[in-house]
Amino acid sequence: MSHVDFRTSPERYKHWRVSVDGPVATLTMDVDEQGGLRPGYELKLNSYDLGVDIELYDATQRLRLGHPDVKAVVITSGKDRIFCAGANIRMLAAASHPWKVNFCKFTNETRNGIEDATENSGQTYIAALNGTASGGGYELALACDRILLVDDRSSVVSLPELPLLGVLPGTGGLTRVTDKRRVRRDVADYFATRSEGVGGSKAVRWRLVDETVPRPRWEEVLSERARSAAHTATRLSGGAGVELTPLGKNRTGAEIGYAHVAALLDRDRGIAEITVSGPLADAPASMAEVRELGDSFWPLAVSRELDDLILDLRTNEPELGTWVLRTRGDCGRLLAYDELLLAQAGTDWLANEITLYLKRTLKRLDVTSRSLIALIEPGSCFAGSLLELALAADRSFMLAGVFEDLDTDAEPAAITVGGMNLGPLPMGNGLTRLQTRFFGDPEGLAEVEKRADEPLAATGAEELGLVTFAPDDIDWDDEVRIAVEERASFSPDALTGLEANYRFAGPETMETKIFGRLTAWQNWIFYRPNASGPDGALRAYGTGKRAEFDRKRV
Amino acid sequence: MSHVDFRTSPERYKHWRVSVDGPVATLTMDVDEQGGLRPGYELKLNSYDLGVDIELYDATQRLRLGHPDVKAVVITSGKDRIFCAGANIRMLAAASHPWKVNFCKFTNETRNGIEDATENSGQTYIAALNGTASGGGYELALACDRILLVDDRSSVVSLPELPLLGVLPGTGGLTRVTDKRRVRRDVADYFATRSEGVGGSKAVRWRLVDETVPRPRWEEVLSERARSAAHTATRLSGGAGVELTPLGKNRTGAEIGYAHVAALLDRDRGIAEITVSGPLADAPASMAEVRELGDSFWPLAVSRELDDLILDLRTNEPELGTWVLRTRGDCGRLLAYDELLLAQAGTDWLANEITLYLKRTLKRLDVTSRSLIALIEPGSCFAGSLLELALAADRSFMLAGVFEDLDTDAEPAAITVGGMNLGPLPMGNGLTRLQTRFFGDPEGLAEVEKRADEPLAATGAEELGLVTFAPDDIDWDDEVRIAVEERASFSPDALTGLEANYRFAGPETMETKIFGRLTAWQNWIFYRPNASGPDGALRAYGTGKRAEFDRKRV
Repeated sequence: MSHVDFRTSPERYKHWRVSVDGPVATLTMDVDEQGGLRPGYELKLNSYDLGVDIELYDATQRLRLGHPDVKAVVITSGKDRIFCAGANIRMLAAASHPWKVNFCKFTNETRNGIEDATENSGQTYIAALNGTASGGGYELALACDRILLVDDRSSVVSLPELPLLGVLPGTGGLTRVTDKRRVRRDVADYFATRSEGVGGSKAVRWRLVDETVPRPRWEEVLSERARSAAHTATRLSGGAGVELTPLGKNRTGAEIGYAHVAALLDRDRGIAEITVSGPLADAPASMAEVRELGDSFWPLAVSRELDDLILDLRTNEPELGTWVLRTRGDCGRLLAYDELLLAQAGTDWLANEITLYLKRTLKRLDVTSRSLIALIEPGSCFAGSLLELALAADRSFMLAGVFEDLDTDAEPAAITVGGMNLGPLPMGNGLTRLQTRFFGDPEGLAEVEKRADEPLAATGAEELGLVTFAPDDIDWDDEVRIAVEERASFSPDALTGLEANYRFAGPETMETKIFGRLTAWQNWIFYRPNASGPDGALRAYGTGKRAEFDRKRV
Repeated sequence: MSHVDFRTSPERYKHWRVSVDGPVATLTMDVDEQGGLRPGYELKLNSYDLGVDIELYDATQRLRLGHPDVKAVVITSGKDRIFCAGANIRMLAAASHPWKVNFCKFTNETRNGIEDATENSGQTYIAALNGTASGGGYELALACDRILLVDDRSSVVSLPELPLLGVLPGTGGLTRVTDKRRVRRDVADYFATRSEGVGGSKAVRWRLVDETVPRPRWEEVLSERARSAAHTATRLSGGAGVELTPLGKNRTGAEIGYAHVAALLDRDRGIAEITVSGPLADAPASMAEVRELGDSFWPLAVSRELDDLILDLRTNEPELGTWVLRTRGDCGRLLAYDELLLAQAGTDWLANEITLYLKRTLKRLDVTSRSLIALIEPGSCFAGSLLELALAADRSFMLAGVFEDLDTDAEPAAITVGGMNLGPLPMGNGLTRLQTRFFGDPEGLAEVEKRADEPLAATGAEELGLVTFAPDDIDWDDEVRIAVEERASFSPDALTGLEANYRFAGPETMETKIFGRLTAWQNWIFYRPNASGPDGALRAYGTGKRAEFDRKRV
């Protein structure tokens, strides 16, 4: 099967239309039934597969980076009487377990991104349900700030996964219904078992939607709500948008290369060796110069490349279970880019957007089901924004001294904590990676903060708790080799569970509950015969056969 | 196979010894290798099965209710050089999936109870690791307030589940290591892959234990730490302990009966119909009278009975997927018992203990993988502490009016919010069931609080959001029947996942992370062939064969 490519652009969309009218953009979902990413299913009733969601993700990214004037985004349907029927069931029934889980993860990330745009970019999303929204269709609406449902006596919202398919709503529905929309838990329970859904005034009373609108007044009310949202949203100003040009990428079976990011795919050892390069030129002096550079501005370019690489490896290379993370470049030069963004992010929309994009890309790493090992070597560039890669890793090794065989005169590796590590790039749990690392140890964190902007050698970094181990040249090869080989010998499932728990010490948020509690239950349910076995509900759906359940409660 | 009986008492223990010396009690684990609950495995190296943990639970309960003078509890081993090897692996490898999950749930609850005793009862637990503590053995230590490890150059602590068995530590280890002991996440990662464990000064430096003690000084230091903990602990005073006499119980295949609690087991419909009766006599006037009553004091008796019933049904009746909860009795009389406990719990250790026991019993309901449906009918007694049963339910139905056919002159059902609903019985998420129900709706909660102590009829209760539905006599039978029958037709797995998500709206705590995030991942891992398949790690352990893994990361 061919590799899934996450790169696309509006002129290639099969399933979405984008229109911009002053401060209001409209994303119209009009899924091409025959346009599935894989053969074997038809995308009826505006149901979606990964291909549909790749386009949605691309559209939301372009609205953020390319349209500074857009302050409200309406998501609606191009079909009559149906907004969206959710993830395509035949696709799910035929998909492998890893495919299902990875698909849900990506759709979750896109919906979290929609909430991030509403909250942090001044682009408020409005779900305009001009027809029934079921399952993942309603979950897409739940990610929006406001939900309008047409009142035509037939359109409803529903979460029919449990009664019809024997699985859970997989993209945050259960968490958002109670924690975001504040639907009472027993009402939420009833709602999730009622496959026929809820519409009209009851949907409003139960807080499932914000308002219902009679069809004759639909356009008028929707337009008013969008204008009002755009009026209220506080999007920073600052010049024209950035065009996201096609992302240059060279992919073979052994290697994936971009301008600043490269990955060697070592199938024998089950690892991907990823190297991220710092900027080659000095930082621009102003945001005006950044606008000149457009999407070749290093922080934006490297975010796009990393983003694409993470999605590619997750989807196409499930057997590469360990990602080894390296960087190379000039720390001082990199930190100057960080400084520019830090200085401007509070006032310039583009500086803000690029920082938020980097944040979301790093969050993808946190929820990636691969072991992450950072190797900090001479010539590396783990400073500020790129230091986050080491802080996201499950373990890090930093060479004390130099490789005597390679280059005795090399400068030993140093890492630098910068402003980017102290706030603007939080994880899903709402804490920075440093705060998570030093959870419950405020003194340890304070010590690190005191050393900000100071290049730290291996011994100092280890003492401060910033790296896991700092072996010297003599021990390096063995220690690193053992760590990597050992990882490949362990149960991949147990590693996924271990990492999913350890990476999120401390508080939980709606986002971590979606990726932790909800996703973990869903994975279990997906895998059980009651859902995916030959007589399971997911496979029985639409066949006329009734699912047969093992009735034992676990 | 015979039913598992959770009732035991010290003279019947096979695996534990209890000794009390003034303010210090010692629980000595000395597992009888041949004393497994089921045939087919030997409990070597102080490994445990459900039977061992049933005794530990019983011992901790008796220490709380029967020993007001005990302020520190030492858990140690009666074996040489081994504290505890964790859950028995052959038992786990042979166990069914539901058995494994249910076993882990119960052991988790006992360990949470140990933390509850330390935090709320002034009984501080100390883990005295006089030998190696592996896996569940170390997790038992993690539930204690302080961990002492003997320093003999061979004793270590370890979490070898991932490298040896391809599963996770199943009783809170991953959560407690980072969130309670504040081990840095990369160090915790390394620790959980190092099957040989960590001892000596490194174990202290990494915060895995609080101190190591040379063997010659072991007894002296342990005794000093126990005395010091007892000295610091603030256990309330107030007279002698209560003896927990054998719990009267009548169990057949169709019925389970106690003095105040009864369950009808309807196997055809897959439901257990549970009825809890309020007190038959008026409340005592003082705690002195309560002491006279001993374990027949209604709140204590009903907590014990409910506790035993929940454990029995969970373990022995996995196919009864829905529990229908009813109460009967006099609300005013019940509220007087509540009032006595509420007035005294701040100053009297026994009133405090009984309230805490009720709290823990209700928490068991919250994490029970059964649908809970409360039926509020004329003659019922859903007030104060028993109202919590309805608030714990996934849905509640309250009859508006009376059953015309049965008794036209009956008093219609009323529910009453009391002091017990407003604080002393929090869920695992740290919120009361009312706060959880009205999460994000402080106005709704305030309305309910205003109506405290007032009997509320069905319509008022429904309007306030205290019950899900309030059908009248005409609709009652159909609505209830559909709700119950529908539940039995859904995927049991999906229901478990749905309920586990909805029951815990809002914030998360270490406890909810253990039951949610960690347990859900573990269930998935347990079920996957990489652990439990014929070539999985759990089955391969000890055979000399190497586990074979599907290497795809999910």
